[in-house]
Amino acid sequence: MKKILLATALLSSTATVASAETGITFSGYGRFGLEYVEGRAQETQIASRMRININGKTETDSGVTFGGRLRLQSTDGGAASTNAALFFAEYEGFRLEVGNANTAFDSAGLLYASEMGFQDSSAGDPQGSFFAYNSTGGVAPGVGIFASYSVGDFTGRISYATPDQTTAAAVNEEISLSVDYASGPFSVSLAAYQDGAGIANNDGFFVGAAYAINDQANVGLNYIDEDSAPGKVITLYGNYTFGATTVRAYVADMDAAGADTAFGLGADYDLGGARLSGSIQSDYAGDMNADLGVRFDF
Amino acid sequence: MKKILLATALLSSTATVASAETGITFSGYGRFGLEYVEGRAQETQIASRMRININGKTETDSGVTFGGRLRLQSTDGGAASTNAALFFAEYEGFRLEVGNANTAFDSAGLLYASEMGFQDSSAGDPQGSFFAYNSTGGVAPGVGIFASYSVGDFTGRISYATPDQTTAAAVNEEISLSVDYASGPFSVSLAAYQDGAGIANNDGFFVGAAYAINDQANVGLNYIDEDSAPGKVITLYGNYTFGATTVRAYVADMDAAGADTAFGLGADYDLGGARLSGSIQSDYAGDMNADLGVRFDF
Amino acid sequence: MKKILLATALLSSTATVASAETGITFSGYGRFGLEYVEGRAQETQIASRMRININGKTETDSGVTFGGRLRLQSTDGGAASTNAALFFAEYEGFRLEVGNANTAFDSAGLLYASEMGFQDSSAGDPQGSFFAYNSTGGVAPGVGIFASYSVGDFTGRISYATPDQTTAAAVNEEISLSVDYASGPFSVSLAAYQDGAGIANNDGFFVGAAYAINDQANVGLNYIDEDSAPGKVITLYGNYTFGATTVRAYVADMDAAGADTAFGLGADYDLGGARLSGSIQSDYAGDMNADLGVRFDF
Repeated sequence: MKKILLATALLSSTATVASAETGITFSGYGRFGLEYVEGRAQETQIASRMRININGKTETDSGVTFGGRLRLQSTDGGAASTNAALFFAEYEGFRLEVGNANTAFDSAGLLYASEMGFQDSSAGDPQGSFFAYNSTGGVAPGVGIFASYSVGDFTGRISYATPDQTTAAAVNEEISLSVDYASGPFSVSLAAYQDGAGIANNDGFFVGAAYAINDQANVGLNYIDEDSAPGKVITLYGNYTFGATTVRAYVADMDAAGADTAFGLGADYDLGGARLSGSIQSDYAGDMNADLGVRFDF
Repeated sequence: MKKILLATALLSSTATVASAETGITFSGYGRFGLEYVEGRAQETQIASRMRININGKTETDSGVTFGGRLRLQSTDGGAASTNAALFFAEYEGFRLEVGNANTAFDSAGLLYASEMGFQDSSAGDPQGSFFAYNSTGGVAPGVGIFASYSVGDFTGRISYATPDQTTAAAVNEEISLSVDYASGPFSVSLAAYQDGAGIANNDGFFVGAAYAINDQANVGLNYIDEDSAPGKVITLYGNYTFGATTVRAYVADMDAAGADTAFGLGADYDLGGARLSGSIQSDYAGDMNADLGVRFDF
Repeated sequence: MKKILLATALLSSTATVASAETGITFSGYGRFGLEYVEGRAQETQIASRMRININGKTETDSGVTFGGRLRLQSTDGGAASTNAALFFAEYEGFRLEVGNANTAFDSAGLLYASEMGFQDSSAGDPQGSFFAYNSTGGVAPGVGIFASYSVGDFTGRISYATPDQTTAAAVNEEISLSVDYASGPFSVSLAAYQDGAGIANNDGFFVGAAYAINDQANVGLNYIDEDSAPGKVITLYGNYTFGATTVRAYVADMDAAGADTAFGLGADYDLGGARLSGSIQSDYAGDMNADLGVRFDF
């Protein structure tokens, strides 16, 4: 199972709006390369995505920043989609989002830390259903609210998302929380959701910890328990950088009958402004997938 | 009834293209807040809109500016829509628009002057059917032409819009006119349309006058007579500014059997770059609606 | 017949991404005017288009530029469409494109050289079916790859496009090639495609030559032989510039039973930043069409 957005979404799609001066600014990325997925009709295909964020913001006299974001995104040759607006207000370390908002669970700092390849994927990603910022469509008639507070190495988040705010009948609303904290080489991230994706009794919990061995090497351990996933997932991952190259690896175990141990090996090569990335991964069904391509931000 | 665009539209959606240098420029706004509408299933909902205008223009050696505009807009959690292009040529006080053009009636200076709240709404707005610039879709196979001329405090406008230019059969075409004039503290606005929204014998007339009592206070009176509205509407409105706060009020009377007197009370608080706005309004059916939110331009 | 894109497309839609610094840049054009087409229900209509290109790119430390392009386009009053992303890598004279890529045939330097009017049309354009960059939609599940190399006055191109990369079954893939070369006042362009638009045994060939008589006058001859066109086409064209005015003419002969000789007469008037262009053309069926309007780039 995949996480379900207010509409539909993509893994690691957490949207953060970079600080910039008043006005309209643009950001985004492009990526393209080869993707191999064992067992599909045409196993090797060209995969690609281009994402353009349109950010509008203004800062009031008292220092509060109000802003909004729209996204245009074309994936794998599809005509670019638009999404619903995310609105935010920021003041010092505090941030409030409304509309197509991020969710606290999806924003947890280490949740997607085992991802690799030019498409940033991992079997260690959450497998259950929960709301997240929607990159490719609307959230209507749903709506989300998100608040975060950062001070020093601490960030706390809380979010609320309803799949339908137009009905007076009771609908299940998702509440989620997350906390990130770092102290020297250690970082830790905790997150939980209740009634994920608006599904009754679909709760999820995540705890992750990472340790920077030195400037070059990092290891981490993630634990995810979701009612809507086939089983609990424990992921051990690490990366090591030498020169322009970073190698990545993970092993993920899912506590479900018949599930194979998933693993991945990947490497990034820093081109200075872009990266060449590839990975070979094996999923819980024992199927292989691999990717090799270029990712560049602009 | 609402006014009908060449496709569909939103009140007070008149689009004006700001003067800027040659090239592509962007403008827009965001707004979000709470909206209460008496009698709907979930009476209080979060309402929002983000609008991005994409403006392309070039100035010729002889001083004529040619340009175009496209709009991306996301409302209430819907994926952002695109609209049809508006093309224009400007020379000194003269402006010509083609395509998804504004209409003279919809552009009348005082027509929407009684609006309030972060969503800029009023029961004193026109209630009939007429064409206007379409913020959220196409006008095909229709088309509009609009011309305006401004000199000093005078602006005159004329527009023509056909709902279907691809058929040789006679279709009803809307013609509209408007004139704005100001002299010292007085301003006056007149507008009329014939076969509004392409509907035979659907004519409308508007006259409005406003008076600036001093730097802080304004009052105005609007009269709208439309064949496609339930009755003639007279609206008295005013606003008063003290410091960062502007209070607004209107009373609107519709000459239709059983119509209640509509009224509204609103306030804006200038945040310097954004405004906090709220209103409480009662419509012709006696139903209350209210809004409170933030509006910021960028 | 028209050329068929991976989805659908427009003549002379070849997309080239201008060199610029790292980041996101915008380009595009607007055009509007009158279009007369003999025999349709309403023969004279207002025609228009606004095109916005969104270009994102980054240059690596080693001098390779990676980039992508999305397009927003509104034609004749339709809501603006989005298209699929074109990705590219450039290094010195070499360029690689992936995704919604250009094709070698469609990019041949002189292929559309007989076009005229504010809508840039000509009966001398190719009449067969082949893939091209898609301005207005996706290419999914198809994909294209394009490579070009330029040195001095020479440019060579090769492209591959498959209409469906998700099936393991054999589908016909289009391969195309083109070469442009110039020497003093002479330029020549050759192009060919195999299985154009993915249609088996649909091959096409083009050769064109142009000669600049002096700074003011150019003449050219195009020959196009396409299996999916009603017949071979030979087009003789020329233009002459005096002051701000350029006059254009062509005669096109199609080797098909009952085909009339097509011809066109056009003129551009340079407004300095925009052009006023008009043409009168007669097609292979002997029907007249004409256009008069403004085109401005931004």
